[in-house]
Formats: sequence, structure tokens, C-alpha cells
Amino acid sequence: MADLSLQARLLTALSSTDKQAIRADFNHHHPADIAKAMVSQPDAAIAKLLQLLPLPDQTDLFSYLAKRQQAALVEELPRNDMAALVSAMDADERADLFHSLGDQQRIAILPGLAHAEREDIRRLCSYPERTAGALMTSSYATLSANLTVKQAIRTLRLEAPDKETIYQAYVLTEDRRLLGTISLKQLILSPSDVMISSLMKTEVVAVATDLAQEQVVEKVRQYDLIALPVLDDNNQLVGIISYDDAMDAAEEEATDDAQKSASVASMRSPLSQASISELYRKRIGWLVLLVFGALLSGAGLAFFEDTLEAHIALVFFMPLLVGSGGNAGSQAAALMVRALATGDVVLKDWFRVLAKDLLVASALGISMGITVFALGYVRSGPEIAIVVALAMVCVVLVGSFIGLSLPFILSRFKLDPATASGPLVTTIVDASGVIIYFGFATWILQIN
Amino acid sequence: MADLSLQARLLTALSSTDKQAIRADFNHHHPADIAKAMVSQPDAAIAKLLQLLPLPDQTDLFSYLAKRQQAALVEELPRNDMAALVSAMDADERADLFHSLGDQQRIAILPGLAHAEREDIRRLCSYPERTAGALMTSSYATLSANLTVKQAIRTLRLEAPDKETIYQAYVLTEDRRLLGTISLKQLILSPSDVMISSLMKTEVVAVATDLAQEQVVEKVRQYDLIALPVLDDNNQLVGIISYDDAMDAAEEEATDDAQKSASVASMRSPLSQASISELYRKRIGWLVLLVFGALLSGAGLAFFEDTLEAHIALVFFMPLLVGSGGNAGSQAAALMVRALATGDVVLKDWFRVLAKDLLVASALGISMGITVFALGYVRSGPEIAIVVALAMVCVVLVGSFIGLSLPFILSRFKLDPATASGPLVTTIVDASGVIIYFGFATWILQIN
Repeated sequence: MADLSLQARLLTALSSTDKQAIRADFNHHHPADIAKAMVSQPDAAIAKLLQLLPLPDQTDLFSYLAKRQQAALVEELPRNDMAALVSAMDADERADLFHSLGDQQRIAILPGLAHAEREDIRRLCSYPERTAGALMTSSYATLSANLTVKQAIRTLRLEAPDKETIYQAYVLTEDRRLLGTISLKQLILSPSDVMISSLMKTEVVAVATDLAQEQVVEKVRQYDLIALPVLDDNNQLVGIISYDDAMDAAEEEATDDAQKSASVASMRSPLSQASISELYRKRIGWLVLLVFGALLSGAGLAFFEDTLEAHIALVFFMPLLVGSGGNAGSQAAALMVRALATGDVVLKDWFRVLAKDLLVASALGISMGITVFALGYVRSGPEIAIVVALAMVCVVLVGSFIGLSLPFILSRFKLDPATASGPLVTTIVDASGVIIYFGFATWILQIN
Repeated sequence: MADLSLQARLLTALSSTDKQAIRADFNHHHPADIAKAMVSQPDAAIAKLLQLLPLPDQTDLFSYLAKRQQAALVEELPRNDMAALVSAMDADERADLFHSLGDQQRIAILPGLAHAEREDIRRLCSYPERTAGALMTSSYATLSANLTVKQAIRTLRLEAPDKETIYQAYVLTEDRRLLGTISLKQLILSPSDVMISSLMKTEVVAVATDLAQEQVVEKVRQYDLIALPVLDDNNQLVGIISYDDAMDAAEEEATDDAQKSASVASMRSPLSQASISELYRKRIGWLVLLVFGALLSGAGLAFFEDTLEAHIALVFFMPLLVGSGGNAGSQAAALMVRALATGDVVLKDWFRVLAKDLLVASALGISMGITVFALGYVRSGPEIAIVVALAMVCVVLVGSFIGLSLPFILSRFKLDPATASGPLVTTIVDASGVIIYFGFATWILQIN
């Protein structure tokens, strides 16, 4: 929700190039709020605003802009200004920006950067998206084990301005192997002549560069970490992931899973920012694919055309049966997808979890069967009531079974279990529902 | 995923009451891992383990146990031990524990606590679940504005052991109004004789006790906060919510939304811990409710029985049409629910968002219409192809419209938009799909 009065003030100040007024707003508002107020303004306006600010405010504001806006500004701002801004950015945000730029835009910025910065960007950009490597920053605070507390605090004071956090420092060997961690709290609480080597925590939770973002989030959350160290194949520290970046990643993952759970492909922008063409592309693929799944149900119905013609009353209960199977399947899939995403359930638990959940599904099926038996009896007499009730028990069981199994199967083949979405499960269950329902009908009503 | 060798070692050590071995495991493992290793062990075993530990380790381990286990242990541990443990717990976790206890169990613990602790628990327990008040802790670090940096650091050193965090301190007036905040990083970087009043940040992001947990998470995430201060109606500081508690809340909310999005009611336990009866209760309600929704589709089909009997070939395309509408609706609902949950879209944006998304839906409908026209033509000739194609365009549009609108409508009536789940949307869209499809068929095929 953009603050409209802030927005109006900023635009007025911009149109009259009133540095004073802009300063005042920056003193009274968080840069996140300023970025939000400018979210729907033209890139040129944001470029002008940035140029009226001193570098630290520029960097703050720039880092809260949407990725789309950041990329557009690379073209709007003069090269020198852009290079200075990129130099001042956090290492991880800078790498993210580069990741989203075209070759042309990269070439426009790189010459203005120092060699070490170019190398840092190249290295951070080399990790696949949504892994620990892509999420981490290279600006962490390090200490050596043979410092005293007093020396360590002095080191952190000197390094603080350039580091993502100084609340957690990493004690390294000369070849950058991680010996332990020490928090600023421990340092503050300890006598000043104690050695770091005797204070540091040596059992450290660390992850590899290729760990999936979703699991990074779980580590940070589970161990209540301020920052999670990332090690390369040689066990050397290459970066840290701070809690705030983990929180952003958590939101990204939850959004991604929520969208996948409804058969929407991963989106690059939030809904309010996404273009019509992006929204179309992210939705059409699955919609068309599922058409072919639905043809199976159609074929099932066509196969049982005789039964349907003989007892057209059966059609009344069809949506109810097929729908209930799909609903039970969606429920089961959602529970399982979320349990796999949070690490509550792992692949090797599948048998135990499946067994428990099939008991639940049986109870659900029987309850639903009784409900629809009553409905069927009232509307169409005992024979159809029996068909409907038996079919319901089966459909709910089969629906739940498919909903429970699909996420495991996807996970087994290294696919994202979230793809076992409601629509996919519903489409598969629909076809089984048609066959089960008309199968029972053909059998019990003795249609040949 | 429990560490099985750790589990085995702990159980062996427990059976021989080997304090030494248990100590060793506590030195080499995070308490979160120990808690995980013990997750499926009987309460008595965990009680025994706790009693073999010194109080600080007891408290650490206890705080990582599942709520269900914590509550059970209240009965297993001797009253004195339990009171000591509860005294040592973090204020917010202690209040959460009390929240989940019965009156009997509360009475067993309260007499062992100091008056101030009892008052603190009573106060923290008084806020409704899933609000800022319920999430916050009362143990935050405070400073007064007239201290120097040196005095402030000394104060924080003294207070540190009892506080949730000392990385962010709150500068209060005598009547506990919040003047500003100061971070330990600022303190460390500033000369020791500077006054806090001249250093502190006076524009503070703070929230009221009744703010919903979901919005608390968004604040912490958006402003990259280590802790979020909570104010009461008199603008007095009553607590803080730390980033790690916000992360736990974020996961709880994402799980809750994921489950609601599949018509599963809010669960108290993760899937792996939930009982069969809880799983049944959380799923049956919506399943039965949706049965009555599906009866609408059934009634629609019954109404068009003549059309169906005249052109039984229509039945082949029914699952495809009805299904596609439901899928498009589920996609739209999921996008909107998530955008509302993350604050990307707010209630007053509805017209703009709806307009954009209906353009997307039109494009989707036309694409889908063309796809099924081809299928219809091949299978059943031009007349049915036209019926199917026109119905598809309409169904996708109507499905998307329902999927987009439902979350807004729920939100407008202060209900959780996540309830606009796939199954609910699918059930509503199904009925419209039946009417649209057979409506077009009756009209174009001229059935009276």
C-alpha cells in the first residue's frame, strides 16, 4: 500500500527539484516506504530522485526498488553514477541485479567497477538461481582465532560499515576454512583479554553452495540463525545468508508454492507488477496441458454412454462424486506438499504417512458415502443410492491416494512436489471418478 | 528428519543414566537437533533426559520440543523442576506454553513462580492468538535517552542474559513511551561519550498489539528488522517480536494458507504429528459443505437432461469445459490470495487488478476456445465445435472472474481470503460451467 501523501510530496519536490524537501522525507521515512511510494512512477522520475540524493541514501533506496525498476534505471542513470551506486550496493543485491541484466547493460556498468568488485560479481552470479550460492553475500565479518576479545571488537568496528552483519563473526584459518563462529553478544559479555579460540562455537550449522533455497530457509528458521555460513566444495567459507535475505526467500518460496499449487508457473514479478503477457504465459501452459487430461474423463464418459442413456438420472450425481474425489485429492496433496516443503515429512517416511492418511481417507470416504446415500435415496431410490454411496467411498479413497502419492513421486524424481497442484490432482481424479462411478452403475444396475 | 545415530546414542545413554554421554551430545549438537531426535519418544523418556540436564540446557531443549510434548511434560516432571524450567523460559515461549495448558496443569505450575512472572504470563496470554500481542515477548532491552554510549553498553551487558536480543535496544520515557531505537552496531561504532538521545533513530516502525500475525511478518520482512516493537493503546512499549519468531510465524501462516487453499481447516500440529482424528475433523467439514455446492451442478445437469439426451455426444466435452473453468478459477484465486497475503495488492486496488486480470482471462479464454474448437471439429463436427469453443471462452472468463473476486469479497467481510480455495472456486465454477455449456448447446443446437 503506497503512502499517497508521501508520494504526492515526493512528486512535487521532484518537479521543483527541491532537494530540501526530499531530504526531509528521507529523514522521516524508511527507504522501503519511499520505494513503495515511487513504485508506479516512470523510470525517469526515479532516476531524477536518485540523482538528487547523496550516495548512501541512493544505495538504500535503490536496494528497495523492484528488480524491474533497478534494471530499467541502468539505462536511465549516467554511467558514472550507476557505477558508483553499484560499487556501494550490498554484494548479494549487486549480484542479483547483474543476474537480471542483459549483456549490453552489464557492459555499460562493468568498466566503472574495481577489479575485485567485478570478480565478486562474477563469482556470486555463477551459482544457479534459488540455491544457497545465489542467495549469499560475500561481505561477512571474519576474525582469526588468536585474537583477544578486545582485538576482535576493534576489528569488527573497523569492518562494520562494509559488512552485512557484525552480530555474527566467522573465525577462519588462513586458507578460509571455518573454525567456528562468535556472536557480538558473546564478545560484549566476555572479559577483554580472553582469546577468541576459547570462546567461539565450534559446532557450526553451515550449508553447501548448491543447497536449495527452500532448505536454506528451513535451516535459518529451525536454528534461529542471524546468518547461515555457506561453504564451497573445499569447505572454505564463501558467503553468508542473513536472516533478512532468508525471510525474503521464504516469502518467494511460499508464493511460488502457492502459485504452483494452482498450476501457475513461477512468476518473476508480484501480481501487481506482472505484465498481461507474463500472466498469460504463466497460466496458459498448464491450462492447455490439463485439457488433454480432461479428455480422459470425456473418453470415460463416452465409453459409458449406454449406461448414461439407460439411467440419465445418474448424471445428477456426477458432479458431486467427481468433485468430491477432486476435493479430497486436493486436500491430501496440499497437506503433503506443505509437509515436504517444511521438512516435516521426508521421502523415506512415505509409507508411514501414506498408511496413516489412507485411514483418514477411509473415514472420510465412509462419512461422505453415508451423506450421499441419503441424498441418492431421496432423489432416485435405493439402487442408485447404493451406486452413489459405494462410488463415493471409492472415489474419496482413490482421490486421497492420488493426492498423497503424487508429491512423493515428483519428489522422488527430483521435481518440485508443489507441482502436484489442485488442478493436476483434480484432473487425474476426475477421470478415475468417472470410471469408478459408471463402473459401479453398470455393474449394480446390470446394464450390458 | 531425525538424526538416527544421535537418537540411538541418546536412548542408550538414557537407559544407563549416562550423564557424561548426554553431556557430550549436547556439546556437539544444536538443541533443535536433540529435540528432533526425541520427537517420537515417549514423554517419560524426554522427562528423564531433561532431569539429567543442567537448567540452561533443559530450557534450550524444552523450547525446541513440539507444543504437544511440552504440555505432556508438565504432568511428567516434578512440580519444582517444572516451575524452575518455566521460570527460565523465554517470556513469549512461556506464555505460549500456558496458552496450550488446561486449568489443572496451570494450577500445578503457577504457585512455583514469582509474582512478576505470573503477572507477565497473565498479560502475554491475554492477547488473541495470531496477533502481534500473542507473538511478542516482554523481555526486551531498554535504555534511557540521557545515557552515554559507554553507559548504554554497560547497561546492555548487564541485561543481556535475560533479554531476547540486545542487538536492538529501545529508548523509553519514564512512562514507557517509545522515543527511539538504537542498535548495538551503532553503539559499538560511536565514541563512548556521545549521548543516546543524539544517536537514536526516532522514526520507528512499530505495531499495535492487535495487528494480525500475517501483517507482523510483512513488517519485519519489508523493513529487514531484527525486532519489531509492539505498542499498546497508550503508545507504551509492551513487547517486541524478534526476527526468529517472525520467521516461525511466517511458516505457520504459509502452511495455514496452503491448507486453506485446499479447503483444509487450520491444523494445530504438523502433518507428521497430527492424529487421525484431527486430520479427519480438519477435512470433513469442507468436503461435506462442498457436496451441497456440487448439487447445484447436478441440478443444472438435470435441468438440461433433454439437451443431453438429444445430443449425448455433448457429454464427452463436459469434463474438459467444466474442468478448464475450475482450473482457470483456481489459478486466479491462488494469485489473488497470495497477493493479498503479502500486501502486494490491497482491497482498494480491486478494480485495477480485476480489469488487468480479466484481460488476461480473455486472452486465455480465446486460446482455449481455439484449442477445443479444433478438438470439437474433429470429433463431433462444426456445430458442436462452435458450442464447445464459445462455451470455453465464457467458462474461462467466468471462472477467472469468480476466482479473482472471491478473495476480495471475503477480505471485504473481514474473512481470510485464503478460504477462497481451489475446491470452493472449482465447485462454484463447475455449476456455472454446466449452465454455460448446456445453455449454449440448447441455443445453438436449437433444442426445445
